[in-house]
Amino acid sequence: MKAGIIGATGYAGAELVRLLSGHPKIKDLLLSSVSFEGGKIEDVYPNFLGKISARLLKAEDTLDSADVVFAALPHAVGETYAAACMERKIHYIDLSADFRFDDDEETYSIWYGKKYQFPKLHKTSIYGLVELNRQKIKENAVSNKLIIANPGCYPTAASLGAFPALNKGLVNLEIPIIVNAVSGVSGGGREPQRSFHYPECADSITAYKVASHRHSPEIERNFSMMANGGKPKVIFTPHLAPLNRGILCTIYIPLNTERQNAQTQASATAEEIYMLYADFYKDEPFVRVLPLGKTAATNRVRLSNFCDISVHVDSGNSTLIVTTAIDNMIKGAAGQAIQNMNILFGLEETTGLEAIPSLF
Amino acid sequence: MKAGIIGATGYAGAELVRLLSGHPKIKDLLLSSVSFEGGKIEDVYPNFLGKISARLLKAEDTLDSADVVFAALPHAVGETYAAACMERKIHYIDLSADFRFDDDEETYSIWYGKKYQFPKLHKTSIYGLVELNRQKIKENAVSNKLIIANPGCYPTAASLGAFPALNKGLVNLEIPIIVNAVSGVSGGGREPQRSFHYPECADSITAYKVASHRHSPEIERNFSMMANGGKPKVIFTPHLAPLNRGILCTIYIPLNTERQNAQTQASATAEEIYMLYADFYKDEPFVRVLPLGKTAATNRVRLSNFCDISVHVDSGNSTLIVTTAIDNMIKGAAGQAIQNMNILFGLEETTGLEAIPSLF
Amino acid sequence: MKAGIIGATGYAGAELVRLLSGHPKIKDLLLSSVSFEGGKIEDVYPNFLGKISARLLKAEDTLDSADVVFAALPHAVGETYAAACMERKIHYIDLSADFRFDDDEETYSIWYGKKYQFPKLHKTSIYGLVELNRQKIKENAVSNKLIIANPGCYPTAASLGAFPALNKGLVNLEIPIIVNAVSGVSGGGREPQRSFHYPECADSITAYKVASHRHSPEIERNFSMMANGGKPKVIFTPHLAPLNRGILCTIYIPLNTERQNAQTQASATAEEIYMLYADFYKDEPFVRVLPLGKTAATNRVRLSNFCDISVHVDSGNSTLIVTTAIDNMIKGAAGQAIQNMNILFGLEETTGLEAIPSLF
Amino acid sequence: MKAGIIGATGYAGAELVRLLSGHPKIKDLLLSSVSFEGGKIEDVYPNFLGKISARLLKAEDTLDSADVVFAALPHAVGETYAAACMERKIHYIDLSADFRFDDDEETYSIWYGKKYQFPKLHKTSIYGLVELNRQKIKENAVSNKLIIANPGCYPTAASLGAFPALNKGLVNLEIPIIVNAVSGVSGGGREPQRSFHYPECADSITAYKVASHRHSPEIERNFSMMANGGKPKVIFTPHLAPLNRGILCTIYIPLNTERQNAQTQASATAEEIYMLYADFYKDEPFVRVLPLGKTAATNRVRLSNFCDISVHVDSGNSTLIVTTAIDNMIKGAAGQAIQNMNILFGLEETTGLEAIPSLF
Repeated sequence: MKAGIIGATGYAGAELVRLLSGHPKIKDLLLSSVSFEGGKIEDVYPNFLGKISARLLKAEDTLDSADVVFAALPHAVGETYAAACMERKIHYIDLSADFRFDDDEETYSIWYGKKYQFPKLHKTSIYGLVELNRQKIKENAVSNKLIIANPGCYPTAASLGAFPALNKGLVNLEIPIIVNAVSGVSGGGREPQRSFHYPECADSITAYKVASHRHSPEIERNFSMMANGGKPKVIFTPHLAPLNRGILCTIYIPLNTERQNAQTQASATAEEIYMLYADFYKDEPFVRVLPLGKTAATNRVRLSNFCDISVHVDSGNSTLIVTTAIDNMIKGAAGQAIQNMNILFGLEETTGLEAIPSLF
Repeated sequence: MKAGIIGATGYAGAELVRLLSGHPKIKDLLLSSVSFEGGKIEDVYPNFLGKISARLLKAEDTLDSADVVFAALPHAVGETYAAACMERKIHYIDLSADFRFDDDEETYSIWYGKKYQFPKLHKTSIYGLVELNRQKIKENAVSNKLIIANPGCYPTAASLGAFPALNKGLVNLEIPIIVNAVSGVSGGGREPQRSFHYPECADSITAYKVASHRHSPEIERNFSMMANGGKPKVIFTPHLAPLNRGILCTIYIPLNTERQNAQTQASATAEEIYMLYADFYKDEPFVRVLPLGKTAATNRVRLSNFCDISVHVDSGNSTLIVTTAIDNMIKGAAGQAIQNMNILFGLEETTGLEAIPSLF
Repeated sequence: MKAGIIGATGYAGAELVRLLSGHPKIKDLLLSSVSFEGGKIEDVYPNFLGKISARLLKAEDTLDSADVVFAALPHAVGETYAAACMERKIHYIDLSADFRFDDDEETYSIWYGKKYQFPKLHKTSIYGLVELNRQKIKENAVSNKLIIANPGCYPTAASLGAFPALNKGLVNLEIPIIVNAVSGVSGGGREPQRSFHYPECADSITAYKVASHRHSPEIERNFSMMANGGKPKVIFTPHLAPLNRGILCTIYIPLNTERQNAQTQASATAEEIYMLYADFYKDEPFVRVLPLGKTAATNRVRLSNFCDISVHVDSGNSTLIVTTAIDNMIKGAAGQAIQNMNILFGLEETTGLEAIPSLF
Repeated sequence: MKAGIIGATGYAGAELVRLLSGHPKIKDLLLSSVSFEGGKIEDVYPNFLGKISARLLKAEDTLDSADVVFAALPHAVGETYAAACMERKIHYIDLSADFRFDDDEETYSIWYGKKYQFPKLHKTSIYGLVELNRQKIKENAVSNKLIIANPGCYPTAASLGAFPALNKGLVNLEIPIIVNAVSGVSGGGREPQRSFHYPECADSITAYKVASHRHSPEIERNFSMMANGGKPKVIFTPHLAPLNRGILCTIYIPLNTERQNAQTQASATAEEIYMLYADFYKDEPFVRVLPLGKTAATNRVRLSNFCDISVHVDSGNSTLIVTTAIDNMIKGAAGQAIQNMNILFGLEETTGLEAIPSLF
C-alpha cells in the first residue's frame, strides 16, 4: 500500500511520516510540503536522517498513485484535495477541522470563518472518533471511498472521558460539564510564535482562549452525540503547559441525583462508575481505564495511541471527576488517523500502533 | 528588629531567609534547623554564599531574642513553639496548617490526623489571609501578641479569585464552585521523593489527591467566610506540572441567574464583573485584576507577592471563569507571611516585598 | 527465545522490558526485582498497563529457563549471576561496570571499591562496544556462551566520537583529548535523591565529579584500544542538564600537525575528516555522521539506538571538534545491550531496534 | 538621576527596566522601542503591570533629559546614539558588540559585517568588564563622559574564569585554552525563531556555531589583555540548553609545567590555585570563588549579578579545569551594565544589584 501525506512537514504530518514508515502494510510514502517542496524530509527533520529520505512533492503529485491520502494541513485549505481523492476513489483522512462538523456548515463557518467549498462532500464524510463511529466507518468503507474527519486533540481526550457517563444516562444535564484541559506546546504547531518561544512558555502555565476556543463546539457536539438525545452543556478551558507532548483533561461531570439516591454509599458509587467505565471500554484496544485510586498522567501514554482514564467521585457534590491523558500527537492526531486507516482497509486496528509508552 | 525562623532550611523557610535578609526593618535573623543544626545556611543553600552565613540553631534558641518568629515546619509539630512565643510575648507566624482552622478542631483532626495540643491558643489565632482579615489583624495586634496562621498556597490562590463574586452575592450556591489548580514542584517541599524525581515529573502533568486534598476544607471554609452567611460548595482538584514555582487556579463560579436576567447582553456581564473585581481590589497592593481579554500566567508573577486575576464569562452557561496566578513560595508562603509581619508591626504592608516579577 | 532481566524495575531494566517486549524474536520475558518482588511490572511502571503484566521474580528464578540474561543491577553485586549463567550455558549481558575492565582488576577496584569475586570470568568476558568489538563477539559466541560487558553511557558517546581519529592516526598524543559531556537526569537512575529532585535540577546546569568520574578510566582505556598502541590522554568532565534523556559529548581532539602540514587549506581538512568519518562508519547501522555544517543534538536521536556525530575543525588551533549525541537509555544502555544480544544469536543487528527518533 | 534605555522591549532592555526601577538613585526611566513605540512597557511585559507604566518613546526622545543612556540594541545599529550622547555629554552604556573591540575595526568588521560609522568614538570607549577595567573606567569618568562597551555574556563568564590563571602566569600558552559554554535560551533574544521554539529546544542540548561564534574574538582578546603580553589561544564552543537563564562555562586551562614541577603533590596544586583565585577576587563584590570540592551551577546565581567560580586540577594532565556560572541576563547583560553605571557615577558598585540568588 502507498500512503500520501499532504503537509508532511508540520508536526502532525511528520508524526504520520514516522509512524507510517514503521507500518507493516505501508510500502511507500508520498510526501508533500509547500514550504519545503523539492527538498528531502530528512533535511527538514534530521531525526529521519538515513531512514526516510523521500523528496517533498507538490500536493497534487501525492494523489495519483496513493491508496490513501492523509491531509495534515491548516484548517480551510484542503477541501480540493478531498474532492480530488473522492474523484480518484481514494480514502481521504483529514487531520484539520474541515470535515468535523459534517453538514453543519453554520457552526463550522462561525468558528473557522469560511463556508464549505464542496458542501456535498460533507454529507458523506464521517467523524473519525473510532470509539464512537467504528461501525459506521467499517460499513461505509465497504461500498465507498470515504472522507474521514480525524477528531481534534482536545475533543478526543474530552469525549473519551465523558462518553460512558453520557451514554449510560449518569449525567445531570441541567448543570454544565466542565472540561479543564492542559496541552503541551507541540499542539501549537511548528511555526515559531511568541507564545511558544521557549523563554515565554517554559516554567509557566496559563489558560488561553477562555470560553472561546474552536474546540468547544466540537466537544459539545460530541457530547450530544453520546447523550442519546440529551443536550449536555459544556464549558471548555484549554491551558498551555511546558510539556512537549500530551493533553490532560480534568472533566467535572454533574451526576444525575435520582440515580444516586438509589445508592446507599458514596464509595459504592465510585466503584460502580469504575465498573461501568471498565466494562464500557473493555474491548477498546487503546483505552485504558485505570484502577480506582490512580490518576492519568501524560507521561504514562507518551508516544502511544493510548487514552488513559481515571474516575473519581465527589459524592458530597454529586460530581464525577474524570481525568484523561493522551499523547496529543498520537491519539490526538497521527495515531488516531492511522487507526482510522486500519479500519478503512480492514486491517487489525492496532497495526503499526503497538508502541508501548516510553518511560519519560 | 530580629526575626526568628524555625525550619529555615525547607523551601519556605529558605525563601523567608532570602526575603527577610533584604527587608529594611530586619536587622538580624535567627535561624533554626533540625536537619542541619550547627551548620551554616550558606552551606545548605549555596545561593546564599557570602551573603547569609548565619549558623543554624536549635529552634528554642531562636525564640528568646526575636521580635517575631516564623515557623516553616511540617504540620502538627509546632504548637509548642507557638505557646512559647505567646508566653514570651512574641508574634508567631505559622506557615503550617496548625492554626488555619481556628477552633474547629474537628476539621483539623480529620485532615491532619492530630488533636490540638493547646486548644486555647486556637481561639485567638487569626487566619492571615490579609485581603480578608487585614482589619482584624491590625486591631488585635495593638493589644496582643498574635498567632497568625499563614494560609495554604492553594487556598490563597483560590480564595482571592472567588472572594469578590462571593462577597457581592453573584454566586449560585446550588451548584459547586470548581477550583482546578496546578502547582509547581516546589510545593512538594525539599525532601526528595519519587513523584518529584526529575524524570518522573518533567514533561508531564497529572492530577493528584482528587477529591481528597487537605486544602479542600480550608478553601471551603474561606469561601464560606466570604459568602455572607451562604454555604458555597467546592470541588478542588490539584495538579502537578513541571514548573519550579507557581500556582494557577482556574475557578468555575456558577452565576446567580436572577441577577443575570437583569442584564441584556453577555458582554455587558463580563465588563460588569471586571469592574466589580477591579473595584473590589483597587486598594490592595498585591492583587492585580488584569484587563479584560488577558489571562493570568504564573510567569507573570514569578518571585513577587502578586496575585494576578483574570475574569471571563461564559454567559450561555451562566458561569464566571476566573484564573488566578501566584508564586506559591511568595504570595503562597513566605511573602504572605512577611505581609502579615508588616501589618503586625505597623509597617507599610509592601515593605521588603517590592520585587517586580522577573521575566522568566 | 526467552530473555531474563535481573533488575527490571530500574530505568535501564525497564527500558529493556519495553524494547524486548517489541523484539520479534523474544517470546517471553522473565523479570526480577528486589524492591518489587512478587508485584507486577505494570504496577511499578503504569506505562506498561495492559501490555506487560509479568510478575516480578527472584533473580534466581529468571536464570533457569532463559536463553539470555540481562543484568541491570548496581555495580558490584551481580557477579554471582554471571557465574550462574556461565554454568548454565546462557549468554549474560551485564549493564553494570563489573566486567568492563576485563582482567584489569586494579583499575576496577580503584574506581568501584571492590575486588573481583570470580576473577576467571573476567578473562573471557568481552567489552560490548559493538563498533569496536563486533568481530570478537561474533567469533567467540559461536563456540561459547559469553559475558558481555555493556559499555557505560558516557564511554559509548565519547568512544564513538573519537574512534576514527584515533584509529587513523590523526591525533597528537602529546595533548590530552577533552571530553566535555552533558547528560540528562535519567542517567542518575530511579532512586530519588536531592541532586535529581525537580526543583534542584530543573532550569539549571552544572558539572559534577570534575576530574574524578568513574567513566574516566573506561574512556581512557577505550581510546587506547582504538589508538593502535598509542596512549591518548583524556580529560573527561560530566555535566547534568535538565533533560530526561540524552548525552551530548563535545570532544576536543588535538590534531597531529605533521599530517596537517601536508594540507594546504583548513577547509580541505574539515572536508577530509568528514570523509574519513563517513567512510569509517559507512557500514555501521547505528552511527550517523552528519553532513558538514550540522551539529548533533540529543533530540534528534531520542528513543533510538543511533549515535549522531558531527565533525568540525578549528584549523588555527589544529583541533578537531567532534560532537556526539546518543539516547543514554538506548544506545547508552538497553539498546546497545540488545544490539549485543542480536549479534550473540546471529540475528540481524538492528532487530527490535528500528525505532526512528521521535520528534520531541 | 534619569536613565534612558534605548531598546527597552528586548530581553536585556526589559531586565534593565526591572533592575533600574528598583535602583535607589534612579528616579526616572525614559524608555524607547521601535516595535512598540507609543505603547506602554507594561502592555509588552505584563510582569510590570501596575508597577512600571512608562510610555515607549522614540530613541531620540530618551536622550535629551537623561543622565545616562543604556542601549540594548542589535549589533551595528546604535553608533549614532553613542555619538549623540557624547555630544550631549551623557554617559552611554552599550550592550551590543559595537564598541567591544575598541579601535580594532578589522576584527569587528570581520565578525559583524560592518565598518565603524564613527571611528573616533572607538578610540575613547572603554570595555566594561569591571573586574578588568574598573580603574580605567573610574579615572576616565572623572574628566569625560564615556562610552562603555558592556561585555558579551559568554566573554564575561569565560574571562572571569581564566583571568587569575592568565594574570599569574600559570598558563602554558602553547596549548589552546578550551572554553566549553552552555547558555539558556533567553540568550537568543525575544524574537521567535525555530531554534528557540519550545518543542525544538526543550529536553535537548546541542552545540552551535562550532569554531565560528562571534564571541570567540572577544574572548581571545580578553584573554590576551589578561596575559601580560602573552598570546593565549582559545577554542570556544557554545551550546544551547533548555534553561531560561544562565551560562555555564567549563574552561580547560593547560598549566605551565615548569611551575608545576616545583610542586610535589597534585593535591597541593589544587589548593594552591584555589588560594590564588580566592585571593585574586577577594575584593570583588560579585565574584564568588567556591570552596574546593564544589562546582558552579547556574541555579545558584539566578537573578543575581554574581559570577560563581570553581577550580579543579587534573594534575596527571597538567590542566586546570574552571567552571563559572552567571545569569546571562544579569552579570551577562543588564546587571553588569548597571555595575558600570554605578562606577561612572561614583556610587557604591553594588547599588541596586544586591539581589541574592533565588532558590529555583
